[in-house]
Amino acid sequence: MSSAIDVAVIGVGLVGSAVLKQLATVPSLSALKVVALQNSRKTLLAAPGQHLALDHWQAQLESGSSPALSLEQLVSELQAIQAKNRRHIAVVDNTSNDTVAGFYPSFLRAGFSVVTPNKKAFSGSVDLFSAMEEAKESDTRPLVYQESTVGAGLPVISTLKDLVATGDRIQKIEGVLSGTMSYIFNEFSPASGSTAKFSEIVSVARQNGYTEPHPGDDLSGSDVARKLTILSRLIPNLAYALPKGYESVDTQSLTPAGLANESNADVYVQRLPEFDAEFDEMRAQAQAKNCVLRYVGLIDVEKKVIKAGLEAYPADHPFATSLGGSDNILSFTTERYPRPLLVQGAGAGADVTAMGVVADLVRVAERRG
Amino acid sequence: MSSAIDVAVIGVGLVGSAVLKQLATVPSLSALKVVALQNSRKTLLAAPGQHLALDHWQAQLESGSSPALSLEQLVSELQAIQAKNRRHIAVVDNTSNDTVAGFYPSFLRAGFSVVTPNKKAFSGSVDLFSAMEEAKESDTRPLVYQESTVGAGLPVISTLKDLVATGDRIQKIEGVLSGTMSYIFNEFSPASGSTAKFSEIVSVARQNGYTEPHPGDDLSGSDVARKLTILSRLIPNLAYALPKGYESVDTQSLTPAGLANESNADVYVQRLPEFDAEFDEMRAQAQAKNCVLRYVGLIDVEKKVIKAGLEAYPADHPFATSLGGSDNILSFTTERYPRPLLVQGAGAGADVTAMGVVADLVRVAERRG
Repeated sequence: MSSAIDVAVIGVGLVGSAVLKQLATVPSLSALKVVALQNSRKTLLAAPGQHLALDHWQAQLESGSSPALSLEQLVSELQAIQAKNRRHIAVVDNTSNDTVAGFYPSFLRAGFSVVTPNKKAFSGSVDLFSAMEEAKESDTRPLVYQESTVGAGLPVISTLKDLVATGDRIQKIEGVLSGTMSYIFNEFSPASGSTAKFSEIVSVARQNGYTEPHPGDDLSGSDVARKLTILSRLIPNLAYALPKGYESVDTQSLTPAGLANESNADVYVQRLPEFDAEFDEMRAQAQAKNCVLRYVGLIDVEKKVIKAGLEAYPADHPFATSLGGSDNILSFTTERYPRPLLVQGAGAGADVTAMGVVADLVRVAERRG
Repeated sequence: MSSAIDVAVIGVGLVGSAVLKQLATVPSLSALKVVALQNSRKTLLAAPGQHLALDHWQAQLESGSSPALSLEQLVSELQAIQAKNRRHIAVVDNTSNDTVAGFYPSFLRAGFSVVTPNKKAFSGSVDLFSAMEEAKESDTRPLVYQESTVGAGLPVISTLKDLVATGDRIQKIEGVLSGTMSYIFNEFSPASGSTAKFSEIVSVARQNGYTEPHPGDDLSGSDVARKLTILSRLIPNLAYALPKGYESVDTQSLTPAGLANESNADVYVQRLPEFDAEFDEMRAQAQAKNCVLRYVGLIDVEKKVIKAGLEAYPADHPFATSLGGSDNILSFTTERYPRPLLVQGAGAGADVTAMGVVADLVRVAERRG
């Protein structure tokens, strides 16, 4: 079959397992052959000319594998596999690891495409971003696909790329970009009004696993700042506007000043009720104007404003009425779409994140298989 | 450059002109070279080894061209160009013509890819659809892209294909699929209520060019039925569920029975006020339940229901609150998206339709250039 490629998977946690499940069970994906699995402890490589059967990969990775290879060693093993199999290799990074992200230029220079939901390489310093762009220009023209870095499997990155590629002018991107922030404010400030306490909602969210282990990592807004960085780098005028990446984004942290240095997550959550009155006050102000509160990311291209923070929206605005659960929503206002183009749906979760990764792999196979 | 292809454009009206404008003016699209232009009267072919400059194509098509070639002749001229240029050729059909659509299998068997916003080939008899599917399997594996057949440039077809390709199970697709119907009911039945007359809204829409020359062609619902057919054929369980295509869809016409045979558009519009009381009554019934009316398409995969018609939605539903102008909205409910994935935005207009066409051409170039 003409669209066969080999796939090396780094990171086999929740998202990685869901990627492997889709590859193993969907008949039309049978041309995507897994030749390597790696987590932080182990590496499992296919024998020369073979690929890995995916029916018992967990057990195989535990028992039949070597200690984890260094990324340099992994590249040289994959080059040997490619020399034997004569198929293009895509490296899938399902980690959220900075070290793996920092290695993308090396993967690309070795001729491998990169597919990943890991935000790090696209939202950090512009140096890594530039190194990647440069490596993509090398002779083998390797590909980089990253749909699941924003909005999980929602068609966000591909839509923005299509708008730009066909000459549309992006004017504004606005959205609820964090599944955790979406959940918290859909509960705290629904269009129908609420008296629920901010601290209680955060506590429940944490118990249900909707937050990072330390909820301050969500409430800092840095996840939203990273996603804004990723989007801004796809907009020609803004590609190099954030030299330090997400740290350059104007970001409002929702961690109260009095908790800013509280690294103990349990203490953080216990003390959060001390600050409920502040959040109540913000909600009351919004409600008095028939508005709801949402934590949003905003890119205003003309004004070169890129910021993350709390905003008030009228109760009949799509951000107020249409969201539920941990939905993300993105609104693209462009020259061609003065009434914005909207994309909405689950913005987090292993299956939908894996879907974006696998759809990206299909595109690599279509182009290089 | 590795992603260069040649493009033959059939149909240079509003959409075709917008496609050519994007190809002519966007620097990153310079690898897409136009080698043929054809309308119903004329054909303009590039000289061997050359491509057409797009700065004065209208004048060139009028003066420097031959009478329109037959489609058979066009194929043989394109084969000669391909033999000389050694680049893949994509045929773009910007017409809404049945004859051109019927010729897609021949284009594909000749080795050309097909990119089109023309709904006809995907929404008619299953015989043409099957012939196309078969022709795609021929040795050269030509490609078919059709994003703009539903929702113009909105990411509808690509999203549905990605969901299916990665193994998600589509449960329901529901949406406002006609820009004209969207405009009419956003005016007639806004969430805030209205007393406007149905006939007046249709009359204004016609004067503004939002309807077909005969508004009955919009009010019949056949455009929605065609789009439902196109979507259903991308869902594995339903691909062959509509043997006669859109004619097999359970479609509610909004043309009053008393006007069903009125072929004179002026008389049709003049007599429409006779039936305003019927529409007022439907709106009043919906309002009494705090609902609005929308003309929607619905695909329920499990129940194998595919239908187009008027439905009532609660005033806080996205179909009620979020739409304006001639926006389309599509809601995909799937195994992975129990809370639906939504895509919304302008569903008609030359620039956004052309954008979908050009983005599809980029994909062909990425795969075959």
